[in-house]
Amino acid sequence: TRRYSITLLPGDGIGPEVISVAKGVLSLAGSLEGIEFGFEEMPMGGAALDLTGVPLPDETLATARQSDAVLLGAIGGYKWDNNEKHLKPETGLLQLREGLKVFANLRPATVLPQLVDASTLKKEVAEGVDLMVVRELTGGIYFGKPRGFSSNQNGEEIGFNTEVYATSEIDRIARVAFETARKRHGKLCSVDKANVLEASMLWRRRVTAIALEYPDVELTHMYVDNAAMQLVRNPKQFDTIVTNNIFGDILSDEASMITGSIGMLPSASLAAKGPGLFEPIHGSAPDIAGQDKANPLATVLSAAMLLKYGLGEKDAAERIEAAVLDTLSRGFRTGDIYSDGNTLVGCKQMGEEVLKSV
Amino acid sequence: TRRYSITLLPGDGIGPEVISVAKGVLSLAGSLEGIEFGFEEMPMGGAALDLTGVPLPDETLATARQSDAVLLGAIGGYKWDNNEKHLKPETGLLQLREGLKVFANLRPATVLPQLVDASTLKKEVAEGVDLMVVRELTGGIYFGKPRGFSSNQNGEEIGFNTEVYATSEIDRIARVAFETARKRHGKLCSVDKANVLEASMLWRRRVTAIALEYPDVELTHMYVDNAAMQLVRNPKQFDTIVTNNIFGDILSDEASMITGSIGMLPSASLAAKGPGLFEPIHGSAPDIAGQDKANPLATVLSAAMLLKYGLGEKDAAERIEAAVLDTLSRGFRTGDIYSDGNTLVGCKQMGEEVLKSV
Ligand SMILES: CC(C)[C@H](C(=O)O)[C@@H](O)C(=O)O
Ligand SMILES: CC(C)[C@H](C(=O)O)[C@@H](O)C(=O)O
Repeated sequence: TRRYSITLLPGDGIGPEVISVAKGVLSLAGSLEGIEFGFEEMPMGGAALDLTGVPLPDETLATARQSDAVLLGAIGGYKWDNNEKHLKPETGLLQLREGLKVFANLRPATVLPQLVDASTLKKEVAEGVDLMVVRELTGGIYFGKPRGFSSNQNGEEIGFNTEVYATSEIDRIARVAFETARKRHGKLCSVDKANVLEASMLWRRRVTAIALEYPDVELTHMYVDNAAMQLVRNPKQFDTIVTNNIFGDILSDEASMITGSIGMLPSASLAAKGPGLFEPIHGSAPDIAGQDKANPLATVLSAAMLLKYGLGEKDAAERIEAAVLDTLSRGFRTGDIYSDGNTLVGCKQMGEEVLKSV
Repeated sequence: TRRYSITLLPGDGIGPEVISVAKGVLSLAGSLEGIEFGFEEMPMGGAALDLTGVPLPDETLATARQSDAVLLGAIGGYKWDNNEKHLKPETGLLQLREGLKVFANLRPATVLPQLVDASTLKKEVAEGVDLMVVRELTGGIYFGKPRGFSSNQNGEEIGFNTEVYATSEIDRIARVAFETARKRHGKLCSVDKANVLEASMLWRRRVTAIALEYPDVELTHMYVDNAAMQLVRNPKQFDTIVTNNIFGDILSDEASMITGSIGMLPSASLAAKGPGLFEPIHGSAPDIAGQDKANPLATVLSAAMLLKYGLGEKDAAERIEAAVLDTLSRGFRTGDIYSDGNTLVGCKQMGEEVLKSV
């Protein structure tokens, strides 16, 4: 048996419910593939704020760092919305990304045949969408300095941030993106605003340079405003997209909504070395927390990404992915993806059905 | 008769064709309402680069400044795509916005009943969409300093830009947005990334403060990633959106594509005083330039915005808007909005049909 230590960060809202389901699925799929997991649950986000006064306690980061992979539920809630910046759940998430140095965020957006009706896009536009956004996650305007508040020559208050990328930061995310595209359909679209921003001009220049190492991948460039349009007009034109932190935040959320089922979408955040961070792309949904209504499948699929990208356990990953598809084919649906003729289930029962299919 | 001087900037690609149609419509609608126009045509964008070596000649800016309003076609094309930054057509556009101090960019996205099928969104999601994006246009990361290229401590090259807003910049765009919302359905959604960026925190704080002057307008706040999702999920939830320069660039393009007919969408860019800049939101479409295939209606509707927002000539503006709707109802369509059962026409004939309806 292969053994791995997994840090579980249930977080806030529906986080604990979906993590509990994913943990069960991981355990079963693992044991069927000769894998044993040691799980350690640590506080993070609002839960950590209430318990320890900070959104990312040192012990949580230390435990995460020493483990083989980290699975996060969701963070945030109304309760902490008006906290000062350093006491926001979101700040804990940014600190976790920085602390684990997970610079490459992979966010697939796939329209499953079983769920094509969930999209607000016309069936012929939505069906077959299968794209991957590779978002730079530890640089750009999220972390750039200088930042803060100050006053200008007129004595007025100003708020400012710095969008900044260094050659090596662009090169390494570009390589991850080219590798990703190579394993998919060999098409990479780099998204920037190089007609206006110097940071984007360097981005485009470096991505173009790195492309020489990947002659088998077809590289195109697109401005971010056009990309936001093209995702609505014809999302099927995209295979793999690579972009900076803030554009990736916006475009990956837009892409996910195009699938119509954000309760289904996982993500992986990877470092050059050390544990990866895996999480559903949906939020903590405080309005349905504790009501057994959450869709656990995004977290279950995040566990599959954890196996595949985090641990290199492809067979176990595919076992979980197949189980999710089988569960959907058997007609089980949580409220967010429910449609006529299917069986409405809660979070727990959805988990049990997936276990049957594993 | 009231007299106004209008600077026409045909620009590149399909620009000259659509400007020529809009000029004719303006003249006729004006004469029927007792308005006389003096038109002055000036080079701008790639056309100006070829003619004078710069994308915005001093004479063009001077003429524009002295006129009562500026109507722009479109700029850019493959030919100038690899120019250095200061020799790009886009740079001329940014210089024009800065030179005219047009800080408030109004971009409506409306799904006309006649064109609801053009949207890639399901009919029930698209029909009735009628929103206005108020984008800050002369500040933020587009113009913020410091910007440029440099090297970091490791001797690596970096590219950087500054996202910066001062209190007065936020206050004035917020006031335009509240005034706009007040004339529409009284709902304003301010979009930012205040969970991460200091520039957005100040933005949210000031918009909230200015709201006290507009107790009749309902203000909400939304993060930009969520806004990108909500525009796809349920665009009808929005009335007026206010946001910064770069988020406005992305979201207004996304919103326009949701209507499915970007060949129909106008924009207005307004200063505190002095002439406004009016332009279709579509690009110069070099692939169909000179083929009489362009849809002139976005430029015709930009001329209507020029009358309404630029000159306060509401009657003439509404005459043009009504003429466009009437032309569509009579079944005339350019290729971009064509659907079965309608009459396919070119740019010129579309213009002639609008003239009949004015
Ligand atoms: C919560 C927030 C800080 C975060 C981000 O902006 O990165 C989220 O939107 C995401 O995409 O994971
Ligand atoms: C051409 C470009 C500089 C411009 C912008 O980014 O503002 C365009 O995209 C727009 O929205 O008018």
